[in-house]
Amino acid sequence: MDNIEHSKTAEAKTKAQKTRVTLLLNWYANPYHTPIFAAKSQDYYAEEGIKLAILETTDPSDVTEIVGLGSVDIGLKAMIHTVAARAKGFPVISIGTLLDEPPTGLIALKSSGIRTFQDIVGKRVGYIGEFGKLMIEDLAKLAGIALSSFETVRVGMNVTDAIQRGIIDTGIGFINFQQVELEEVAGETIMLRLDQLAGLGCCCFCSIQFISHEKIIQENPELMHKFMRATLRGSAFTTEHPEEAFELLCQGKPQLRNPLYKKIFYRTLPFFSRNLKNVEDDWKKVESYTKHLGIVEKTFDVKQIYTNAYLPSIPYSEVEPIAHCLA
Amino acid sequence: MDNIEHSKTAEAKTKAQKTRVTLLLNWYANPYHTPIFAAKSQDYYAEEGIKLAILETTDPSDVTEIVGLGSVDIGLKAMIHTVAARAKGFPVISIGTLLDEPPTGLIALKSSGIRTFQDIVGKRVGYIGEFGKLMIEDLAKLAGIALSSFETVRVGMNVTDAIQRGIIDTGIGFINFQQVELEEVAGETIMLRLDQLAGLGCCCFCSIQFISHEKIIQENPELMHKFMRATLRGSAFTTEHPEEAFELLCQGKPQLRNPLYKKIFYRTLPFFSRNLKNVEDDWKKVESYTKHLGIVEKTFDVKQIYTNAYLPSIPYSEVEPIAHCLA
Repeated sequence: MDNIEHSKTAEAKTKAQKTRVTLLLNWYANPYHTPIFAAKSQDYYAEEGIKLAILETTDPSDVTEIVGLGSVDIGLKAMIHTVAARAKGFPVISIGTLLDEPPTGLIALKSSGIRTFQDIVGKRVGYIGEFGKLMIEDLAKLAGIALSSFETVRVGMNVTDAIQRGIIDTGIGFINFQQVELEEVAGETIMLRLDQLAGLGCCCFCSIQFISHEKIIQENPELMHKFMRATLRGSAFTTEHPEEAFELLCQGKPQLRNPLYKKIFYRTLPFFSRNLKNVEDDWKKVESYTKHLGIVEKTFDVKQIYTNAYLPSIPYSEVEPIAHCLA
Repeated sequence: MDNIEHSKTAEAKTKAQKTRVTLLLNWYANPYHTPIFAAKSQDYYAEEGIKLAILETTDPSDVTEIVGLGSVDIGLKAMIHTVAARAKGFPVISIGTLLDEPPTGLIALKSSGIRTFQDIVGKRVGYIGEFGKLMIEDLAKLAGIALSSFETVRVGMNVTDAIQRGIIDTGIGFINFQQVELEEVAGETIMLRLDQLAGLGCCCFCSIQFISHEKIIQENPELMHKFMRATLRGSAFTTEHPEEAFELLCQGKPQLRNPLYKKIFYRTLPFFSRNLKNVEDDWKKVESYTKHLGIVEKTFDVKQIYTNAYLPSIPYSEVEPIAHCLA
C-alpha cells in the first residue's frame, strides 16, 4: 500500500505535531465560523503548512478549561471567559478576534408579555453559564429587583429551544443568532439589550476571541502567525464573497444548508472582524465590568491577556488584493 | 464573588486534570451518541467524579490522530481506523464498543438506475476517507471492473448532501443514518451492502469503539473504569427508555429535535452495544480484512489493540437493575 504510511511511532508523532493544529470552536459549527471553514476548504491553512482539525464543543462552558490545560492548541471564546480563565489560574491569551461583539440581551416572544426589564419579576430567566447568571443578578440589583422575585435557569446557548419547550420565559441570546432562530420558529420577538440595560456599551461575552495557552504560543510563535494569516484570508474572503463563503461552510457542515442558518449568516456578516485585531477599548470595558462583578482583583491588568503580535500588520486584502477588487 | 474560584495555577490544573475527561466524538453529535448524552445529563459521569467534556469533530478523518497524539483522553472511532492508527505508529487501544456495526453499503437513489455493483461503471462513487476508497477499489478488482471505468470522490460522511448536490451518483453510507436521510429528503433508495459484496460478513468501519492512548490508559486505569461504568449505565438507560433518552439527547443538542433524527435514532437503537464489549469475532474479521487490503503486516495481531478490562464484568442493568424492570 503506497498510500499508507508505515512509519515508526516517533516519526509519526514528530511529523504530526509539527503541522497538526487543533482548533476548538466555542459551540457547534455554525455561521459564526464561516471564515475558518472558508479558509480550510480553500487550502489557506494547508498553504501555511497547517493541517487543521476543527473540533466542536457540546458545552460552551468547557472551552476555556480545555484550552487552559493545553489540550487543544487554539480555542474560541469570549473576552469575559478569557479574563475569568486567568482569574482561575489558566494561562490563556487572546491572539485575535473572529467576531466583534453583536448586541446581546434578553430575548422573549412578544406573546410572553415581557416589555421591560422590570417584567422579569415572576418569570423564569434563562442564562448561558456562570457569568450570564452574575450579569442578570447584577442588573436586577441595579434595577432594584429582588433576586427572589424571579427564577434563573441555566440553558447554555440553547435559549430558543428552552423558550419553545416552556422551560423559561426569556433568556440571554444574540441578536444575530438566537433571536433569529426564535423569530423563525415561533413568531415575533423582543430583545432587551444588556449593554443598554447596564449602561456599559458592552456585554462582554459575545465577541469571539482566538485564545491559546501561553506555553503553546511561546513554543510555536511561527505557527500562530501562520494560523492567523490563513484565518485572515478566510475572513477577507467571507466578507468579500459572502455567498460563496456560506456555500463552503455548508459543504463542510451540510446540516447548516437551510434558510434559517443562511439568515443567521447574513445577520452575522457585519460583525466578522475585518482585521482580526483585539480591540483595546472592548478589553478595557471588560476589565471594568469584570472588576465590577468581582471576577478579578482590582489590580488586574487586562493588557497581559491579549496580543496582536501574531497578526499580519495590515488587512489581508491589502496585502494580497483579491482579484475582483482590482478589476 | 464566592462562586468564582481564585485558586493558583498549579492548584487549578491538578484539580481539573484529575476529574476532567475529554471525549472526542467520531462526527457531530447525533443519535449514535445518545447513551453518552443520557449518561451525562443524568449525572452518571458526575457520580463517578468525572467532569466530561464532549467534543465533536468537523472531519471524522482527524479523530485517530488527535487521540493518537494524546490530545484528548478518549475518542470514538471504528475498528479499521484503530488498526490503521497502530500501523501508522499511534499507540491507541479500544476499551469498549458504543455501537455494534450496522449494515453499510453503497447507497443511491432508485432514480440513479444503479441496481448492482456492476452499475458503478461510468458513475461517480463517493467515499468517506482513505479506507472507503481502498474498499471500493478492492471490490471493483474482485468484480473485474476497471478502476478507470468509474470515478471516486471523497465526501466524508456527507454522502446524502453530495448526492443531492449532484456531486456523486452513489456513495458509502449506513443503513441507519445516511440511507434514512436520503430517503427522507429525496425519495426511494437502494443499498448495495459492502459485507455481502465482499463476502466478508463485516464492513469494518461502522462499529464505533471507545479508543484511547496507551499512556493515558496506563496512567489513569481507575478513570477508565469509571468512564466505562457511567457509559454502560447510559447505554442501559437508552435501550430501556428510548424515548426519554432521545429527549435527553435533544436537550443537549436541540438541532436534533426533528422527525429525521428521531427516525435515525430508532433505526440505530438495535445496534447500541448492550454490554460495551469489544467483540472478538469482529476484530478478527477486521484483522483479516486489513491484511487483505495491505494496511498492516501479515504478522499483525489485533489482540494487542483492544481490551475489555475496563468494563464492569456484567451488564449494568444486572448490576443495578433499573426500578421499572423489577416492578
